[in-house]
Amino acid sequence: MTQTFGDKLLDAASTRGRLCVGIDPHESLLRAWGLPVDATGLAEFSRICVEAFADTVALVKPQVAFYERFGSRGFAVLEETIGTLREQGCLVVSDAKRGDIGSTMAGYATAWLDPASPLSSDAVTVSPYLGFGSLQPVFDLAEEHGRGVFVLAATSNPEARVLQDQTDAAGVSISQQIVNEAAALNAPHRAQHRAGNIGVVVGATLTDPPVLSGLNGAILMPGVGAQGGTARDVDTIAGDMSHLAFPNVSRAVLAQGPDVENLRAAVSETAAAFPGFPRS
Amino acid sequence: MTQTFGDKLLDAASTRGRLCVGIDPHESLLRAWGLPVDATGLAEFSRICVEAFADTVALVKPQVAFYERFGSRGFAVLEETIGTLREQGCLVVSDAKRGDIGSTMAGYATAWLDPASPLSSDAVTVSPYLGFGSLQPVFDLAEEHGRGVFVLAATSNPEARVLQDQTDAAGVSISQQIVNEAAALNAPHRAQHRAGNIGVVVGATLTDPPVLSGLNGAILMPGVGAQGGTARDVDTIAGDMSHLAFPNVSRAVLAQGPDVENLRAAVSETAAAFPGFPRS
Repeated sequence: MTQTFGDKLLDAASTRGRLCVGIDPHESLLRAWGLPVDATGLAEFSRICVEAFADTVALVKPQVAFYERFGSRGFAVLEETIGTLREQGCLVVSDAKRGDIGSTMAGYATAWLDPASPLSSDAVTVSPYLGFGSLQPVFDLAEEHGRGVFVLAATSNPEARVLQDQTDAAGVSISQQIVNEAAALNAPHRAQHRAGNIGVVVGATLTDPPVLSGLNGAILMPGVGAQGGTARDVDTIAGDMSHLAFPNVSRAVLAQGPDVENLRAAVSETAAAFPGFPRS
Repeated sequence: MTQTFGDKLLDAASTRGRLCVGIDPHESLLRAWGLPVDATGLAEFSRICVEAFADTVALVKPQVAFYERFGSRGFAVLEETIGTLREQGCLVVSDAKRGDIGSTMAGYATAWLDPASPLSSDAVTVSPYLGFGSLQPVFDLAEEHGRGVFVLAATSNPEARVLQDQTDAAGVSISQQIVNEAAALNAPHRAQHRAGNIGVVVGATLTDPPVLSGLNGAILMPGVGAQGGTARDVDTIAGDMSHLAFPNVSRAVLAQGPDVENLRAAVSETAAAFPGFPRS
């Protein structure tokens, strides 16, 4: 029986804590670390992050946009980064926010979740503007290989509210609809797994978040640290799914680079606030 | 004064017609063309498409997913394809459907619209699930360089209706809200340009499409040909914006490959139904 992504994540969290650390090599950070703003700087930034995070963090999240910015050379660095992180025992979610339909969506699914792909990751983020159902090809591949999908549901940026908070005739918000659909895909795993393959993205700073009870899948929570979300916010929003809530920190940790020991210290300090269950 | 993307597109359409031809090298098409399912097959497929389309089609749309599927090697082929198409005089819209926030969205904007990027295109498609306002960095770069952005508004796939047709308190659908926001960005160009830089994607098969009057920007219309949309559907949906409506055909044309003359004949036949204004 293939282990689900949710189970893999809970296993990792039990020893490493529930933390998702971002690798966000944007231009200002490359400069702050004294690196050139090109593919060689990107490679060095990524190498330092791998050294700092791979053997202690449960889930690492490279931001694809900052690699794509350098075209094929950036993607070559991303391939190397994902591969090395996974070899060294952490789970990798590629933050790509892809979304399309039919054979095109299947192309993205293959790119990020097929074991034979050079970009093969443990999980990928996807965007549901074309309808939750349009993402079926990536759900299918995730189920086949025990990989994860995080669907954008309620994001932490203020511009998102006007769309994601709109409600249907029954008063259910778009973000809640997304969570409910993900929960339905995870439900068949309840008998044999602690959690399914389909997760959601829900901001830790939201005042009116969707109800996550019954999701039975992982929750990626941006907005912690620099953006103001606290460990209490994470637990309040996740409710009885707290054990599956992985706060994402990027800026607060990366600001301590490029020194590897300082990066590792920032991770330890942050991770202490988000223990896995059972506590290690 | 920088020419807008809308003006460039109208100029191209006046001699080449209002047609957007897709380059969709998915696995079944690679096989149908007798090519290997790898980056070398992708390169040969793309080379044939460039030869067939670059000197006759107004707008060519490579589907990024089918390149991304092969990782950095696929992106290297995409860079070469975009560059050669543009050198030979057609406009290129990279169908990436990217969408993120803040500095991350700026990373995607740089990747696809910065003149110095290896993936530099005339236009890019984007997805607004994080809110129309979250896309501001790509609008800014488009305005700076006279490049185009096509925002997903009302797509042609049935799974999209449940999200895109939801209405706000005033009864305005999400897809209409997107069109209205794009129109507002194009409005300042009315005095000096025939059309602005910000376009939308609206399916040609929709029975209840958003009102496009006043958009003053380009309209990319999938759903023509194999999916059933006709020239009459395009004109009905676009209304007084018909001159800016570019139907997208992919399957119906690509099914005639790999013979270049057959591909060119399929383009001529299809383009005849969608003349530019004034007719050449």
